[in-house]
Amino acid sequence: MKSPIEPKLLKGFRDFLPESEIVRKSMTRKLETVFEQFGFVPIDTPAIEYAEILLGKSGGETEKQIYSWRDQGGRRVALRFDLTVPFARFLAQHRPRLVFPFKRYHIAKVWRGENPQAGRYREFMQCDFDIVGADSVSADAEILLVVCRSFKSLRIEDFKIHVSHRGALNDFLSSLGIADRSADILRLVDKSRKIGPEKTSSELAALIGPEKTDSILDFISFVDSNELALQKMAGILGEDNSHVGRLRDVYACFRELGMAHYLVFDPSITRGLDYYTALVFETFVAGAEGMGSVCSGGRYDNLVSVYSKEKLSGIGGSVGIDRLLAVIEELGELPSWKGKTQIVIPVVDEDLARYYHKLAEMLRSEGFNVEVFHEKLKLAAQFTLAEKKGIPCAVIVGGRERERNVVQVRDFATRSNFENLSVPEAIVKLKGILQV
Amino acid sequence: MKSPIEPKLLKGFRDFLPESEIVRKSMTRKLETVFEQFGFVPIDTPAIEYAEILLGKSGGETEKQIYSWRDQGGRRVALRFDLTVPFARFLAQHRPRLVFPFKRYHIAKVWRGENPQAGRYREFMQCDFDIVGADSVSADAEILLVVCRSFKSLRIEDFKIHVSHRGALNDFLSSLGIADRSADILRLVDKSRKIGPEKTSSELAALIGPEKTDSILDFISFVDSNELALQKMAGILGEDNSHVGRLRDVYACFRELGMAHYLVFDPSITRGLDYYTALVFETFVAGAEGMGSVCSGGRYDNLVSVYSKEKLSGIGGSVGIDRLLAVIEELGELPSWKGKTQIVIPVVDEDLARYYHKLAEMLRSEGFNVEVFHEKLKLAAQFTLAEKKGIPCAVIVGGRERERNVVQVRDFATRSNFENLSVPEAIVKLKGILQV
Repeated sequence: MKSPIEPKLLKGFRDFLPESEIVRKSMTRKLETVFEQFGFVPIDTPAIEYAEILLGKSGGETEKQIYSWRDQGGRRVALRFDLTVPFARFLAQHRPRLVFPFKRYHIAKVWRGENPQAGRYREFMQCDFDIVGADSVSADAEILLVVCRSFKSLRIEDFKIHVSHRGALNDFLSSLGIADRSADILRLVDKSRKIGPEKTSSELAALIGPEKTDSILDFISFVDSNELALQKMAGILGEDNSHVGRLRDVYACFRELGMAHYLVFDPSITRGLDYYTALVFETFVAGAEGMGSVCSGGRYDNLVSVYSKEKLSGIGGSVGIDRLLAVIEELGELPSWKGKTQIVIPVVDEDLARYYHKLAEMLRSEGFNVEVFHEKLKLAAQFTLAEKKGIPCAVIVGGRERERNVVQVRDFATRSNFENLSVPEAIVKLKGILQV
Repeated sequence: MKSPIEPKLLKGFRDFLPESEIVRKSMTRKLETVFEQFGFVPIDTPAIEYAEILLGKSGGETEKQIYSWRDQGGRRVALRFDLTVPFARFLAQHRPRLVFPFKRYHIAKVWRGENPQAGRYREFMQCDFDIVGADSVSADAEILLVVCRSFKSLRIEDFKIHVSHRGALNDFLSSLGIADRSADILRLVDKSRKIGPEKTSSELAALIGPEKTDSILDFISFVDSNELALQKMAGILGEDNSHVGRLRDVYACFRELGMAHYLVFDPSITRGLDYYTALVFETFVAGAEGMGSVCSGGRYDNLVSVYSKEKLSGIGGSVGIDRLLAVIEELGELPSWKGKTQIVIPVVDEDLARYYHKLAEMLRSEGFNVEVFHEKLKLAAQFTLAEKKGIPCAVIVGGRERERNVVQVRDFATRSNFENLSVPEAIVKLKGILQV
């Protein structure tokens, strides 16, 4: 016999044990429910595509990070590194079969070969949602509303969506006569939260000189009131600036919904990515701001330019599922990992195995999740196992109970037993203990 | 501007448009619910692992099919080609942290670079469920019971689980003195459904001669009664054969549950894979038997031999999600692809956009899924769009309705309108139409 191969994972990759996977699954189900409440529909795309298609518009940084190889047929293929590029390809390819405005969500894994750091992995799960083919305040507001509802559905109440407008910043750069440097400037401003004000200032100054740097730093400086922030922006760009008007309309919608306190107008938000052209946003959870945005997105005037000559504008957002899990863990608010099993049936007498399965089926048909144990251990050992699994109740049947067609119910929390119950009586008792 | 890159997929890969993805998601959710009813918990493992680990026990056929390459760090990595090998690695690696018997499920994509045929893809979704660390009739019966409940939850009532026992077949081969050829014989018998009786017979004869071939063909021949099939097996192997006894005990359990009609004892089932050692099964849907088994599995006496010196026995099954979808489509029973949106709010007056979102939130808090339209088109065009999306009701508010704080409800199926309703009245009306 050969000696065993050491079981191990590649650096930057993780297994999800039940305690983590239960939480992740419950999170994605809640998000899916919110998307469905708003009329978004799911799609899926392959993990592997032609490398040429995935790299279409991207620069060298992406090419270094992407997992790419030649397949058995000699084709250069790659694993997707986000869900946006495949979505753009999907839209261009299936356009005639889709109903526009097209509202889709997509929750799936992506892969990046970057150097793994704390909270960064080479395989992670993204959750994207977009409205494509609608350019209106209503669509902008809805995307932000979906962000709010998503976090609330996850019982995260204390969060802020930082909102800005790429068009407004571009107008401002034009007024300074430096519109041609906008890409570099946007990237520097985008990094400012990470690299700090001094480094931002010096790097900007090297690019456009100290005077214009001061103007930009003033423009992006934080104002602690949405009304004042919008007023300041209008003061600089003009009362009739359409981008400021758009932000005002979105804000009015959130006021009407009684949700204005979730928005923060913050001109330092730019989103480094090239394809955003209008409203952009990032979301921070109170107490974990340092972990970065957990949901970001914005409006683009054309998502499909790489694959089609026709335009498709839209707005979308992306929840970093794994980063959000890390944030919830950081806040110490990770929900209980316990499974969903409510009742265990221990093995008192192996000859009753068939009856245990029958009893379990009766209880399942009442809506309970029921685990039948398979091995006859001491009853105390089976109770310990059930408690390790977080199962709150047991239904116990030995030979004597079976003869008299009764069962015993045990509530593990209070360690109380209820004997001599008929099955219908046991069901009532279990519903009481489990509060269902 | 560069000319667009043609949007296309690699051969053997597919997009899932909403109509397919809604069905696939609903299918996986139903399966997850069944697993939870039985106390199974979810896990996840990375798509990419060390190639050496994934290929551990496999032969050349797997090596040819696996997607494998050298990553940025020069490591030979590969995409998983099933969920069993990563599960074996997972068990060996995390054993001390798991509670045994360990009941897990795992629904995820796997990749194989085989030549795509009808219904075969290079990327497909598998759904595995296993009980590890329990060797009892009770565990065997439970896995088969989970198969039954899974199909019933998908509203597939007419299916058969073909059950056999590798140990019984091995005992029979030993009695013929050809136990040493068992691997080859098992593979041939496994293929017999595909290649037909004549080819099976001639290939077996070439291997072990005509006489023993006849004995094997008799042993695996189909008997159209479970009682007689078990009796025949006992007649050949002896009344006290423990493997036949095990099958009898499983059958008794299914009789007690009133589900014996789902089982078919069929000694031609062997499962070609090496690691099965006892009970094996395949599941066929009536009317689509030719499409092959949609759920297969069996008992193994050691799953982790490649990665650990300690043994772990268990039993498990695997649903081919994509093949099952193809079967349902073949039977013409694909459920409606329509989304889950129940109510649309069309744009009658753009100035009411904020109110539309507020109204939608009120309806969502009543449990409805509500889509707000974002663009002012003619009302008829918005109705057409809603019907294309399969949304059954509309709540319509124009300026006059808004002034009087009323709404209009439209039932698309009957094309009836209900005017001048207060919002609470509308909610009652909608619940009536939607029967919720």
